[in-house]
Amino acid sequence: MLEKTLKAIQLPCKNSAEILSLRIDQLIKPQGSLGKLEDLAIQVGAIQRTEKPSVKNTAIIVMCADHGVTEEGIASAPREITLAQALNMTKGLTGVAALARENGSQLYTVDVGIDTAEKYSGLIHKKIRMATGNMVYGPAMTKAECIQAIEVGIEMAHYAIDCGADLIGTGEMGIGNTTASTAILCALTGKPAHELTGIGANFPIEKLPHKAAVIEKALKTNHPNPQDPLDVLTKVGGLEIAGMTGLIIGGASKNTPVVIDGYISTVAALIACKLQPKIKDYIIGSHRSLEKSASFATELLGITTYLDMNFRLGEGSGAVLAFNLVKSACAMNEHMITFEEAGFGVV
Amino acid sequence: MLEKTLKAIQLPCKNSAEILSLRIDQLIKPQGSLGKLEDLAIQVGAIQRTEKPSVKNTAIIVMCADHGVTEEGIASAPREITLAQALNMTKGLTGVAALARENGSQLYTVDVGIDTAEKYSGLIHKKIRMATGNMVYGPAMTKAECIQAIEVGIEMAHYAIDCGADLIGTGEMGIGNTTASTAILCALTGKPAHELTGIGANFPIEKLPHKAAVIEKALKTNHPNPQDPLDVLTKVGGLEIAGMTGLIIGGASKNTPVVIDGYISTVAALIACKLQPKIKDYIIGSHRSLEKSASFATELLGITTYLDMNFRLGEGSGAVLAFNLVKSACAMNEHMITFEEAGFGVV
Repeated sequence: MLEKTLKAIQLPCKNSAEILSLRIDQLIKPQGSLGKLEDLAIQVGAIQRTEKPSVKNTAIIVMCADHGVTEEGIASAPREITLAQALNMTKGLTGVAALARENGSQLYTVDVGIDTAEKYSGLIHKKIRMATGNMVYGPAMTKAECIQAIEVGIEMAHYAIDCGADLIGTGEMGIGNTTASTAILCALTGKPAHELTGIGANFPIEKLPHKAAVIEKALKTNHPNPQDPLDVLTKVGGLEIAGMTGLIIGGASKNTPVVIDGYISTVAALIACKLQPKIKDYIIGSHRSLEKSASFATELLGITTYLDMNFRLGEGSGAVLAFNLVKSACAMNEHMITFEEAGFGVV
Repeated sequence: MLEKTLKAIQLPCKNSAEILSLRIDQLIKPQGSLGKLEDLAIQVGAIQRTEKPSVKNTAIIVMCADHGVTEEGIASAPREITLAQALNMTKGLTGVAALARENGSQLYTVDVGIDTAEKYSGLIHKKIRMATGNMVYGPAMTKAECIQAIEVGIEMAHYAIDCGADLIGTGEMGIGNTTASTAILCALTGKPAHELTGIGANFPIEKLPHKAAVIEKALKTNHPNPQDPLDVLTKVGGLEIAGMTGLIIGGASKNTPVVIDGYISTVAALIACKLQPKIKDYIIGSHRSLEKSASFATELLGITTYLDMNFRLGEGSGAVLAFNLVKSACAMNEHMITFEEAGFGVV
């Protein structure tokens, strides 16, 4: 299913982009003066294959899973916080939930690998396994599990779109997942862990060398193949990261733009684009996260960001805030008129 | 009335800020991880003098006026565009109007000095005079006119607040007003015009030396006193700039936060803060404008920005986009719970 979905993805429609671009240059404002909002309208039009881009219903999909590597003491919070926060999310009480509510966005909280055997009402049960394995001693998961987790993401994106969303966003909850994300980024780029390791959720700075050493160990144990994104994701990734990779693939496969959040989402997007480079044009950045290597990952992906909020929460909080910018871009094109329509020459 | 209003302005409530700050540090997220959104909630709480900041109704107020200095050929668009765009604004057809509509914001378009003798339906008639004088040959206006224009801004802010707005934003329309803004900034800082002059609404780069020379001439003719903000505004300012200064004073005097837009709004805010330094804490920045000296003006004012959109339109377009961030900040505080409420220890 993953293979088939990846193959079916087309580039966004160049023709729609060109027509839109011409019209936006004629709107009653100095050419280019709405900057990135103009680019957003053109991007969404190309993705939706229309000259009239429109975003009315948004959905933020939060993938939740635990990490075996938390055994190594690489996170401030205990593993149980993943479940506790996932449940708080379903009750509308966390950061992303508060922002989704204010912004009129649907919120889906998905258990793709939380370390609990129980099922909870409100939490979408798509568990592949209870937490990944500790990647210091072996692969985080099997390749089959990794593909399954990606497919959960694809399914969830399709489900949200079928429920009416014309814009989706990626979010995550998983204690330990900046460690896995950094391991992926090291594997893909060949950079040493100490260069890329950041504090995540307020991990003490003085313990960063330990976090970096754990990542180096995991890389040494597993030898992920930088040319094989699935191998990297399987060996040093996470179930929720794979799930987010799937969300991005799923959005692209349904001609739906996907807003990514911060560091962990960006790493998931890097994997998606390595699996199918055409996906890049479906991705919309959101904010410049404060996590140490977030900007590096964003540049590597080659996308821009719109918000400068000093966020480093994750959960999809920055993605939800960017939804309004995408809606506003469509509104600009919908409501503004051209110089000709206004009856005066181009300024 | 200006004098009285300025004197009555109090600093925002420190106590509310402290209580809010303590609570926000206890919300179920890593401390500080929602960055500037946390700061915004605290700022709005202090301004509203409450531990429960709330923003439900927003208003963007667009001050429109013409500039005598357009006779010197310092703008690409003819003077008539000010009126044309002000009317388009009342019909919901310009950039800020499209964004205000999408963001559920009230839009007030105010004629504080458009070069027309006619009154138009939809345009709020508060005209002081038909365009300023050409500042190359004398002061742009009289001191009495300048004070009148500021008082129009104060009145409009109070009117919008009386109509239910709990957050207002500043916007402007006035062909030639980057020239006046740069003249003000030069007068306040002593910097030479060629260092601060930018392209405004796509003025050709090769003609920038001419625009800078016109500003230098105006400064030489008028000798504005950098220690006297009213003198600067009177001699090399604009009626809509004075109007925006008034909007900011008016917001502060009613314990209402004011979101400023880009370059011209920031210059108006600098004048407001020189008239009454306590006003600064009532000002909320929006975006980092691409206009050449916008960042310089923002740093001088000492505020932060939240959006990185490459805007250089003006009209209040960036301010309207920031409204949602302020609303979201209040929602964060309203809907999120503390670790104690959630039943677990601080992470």
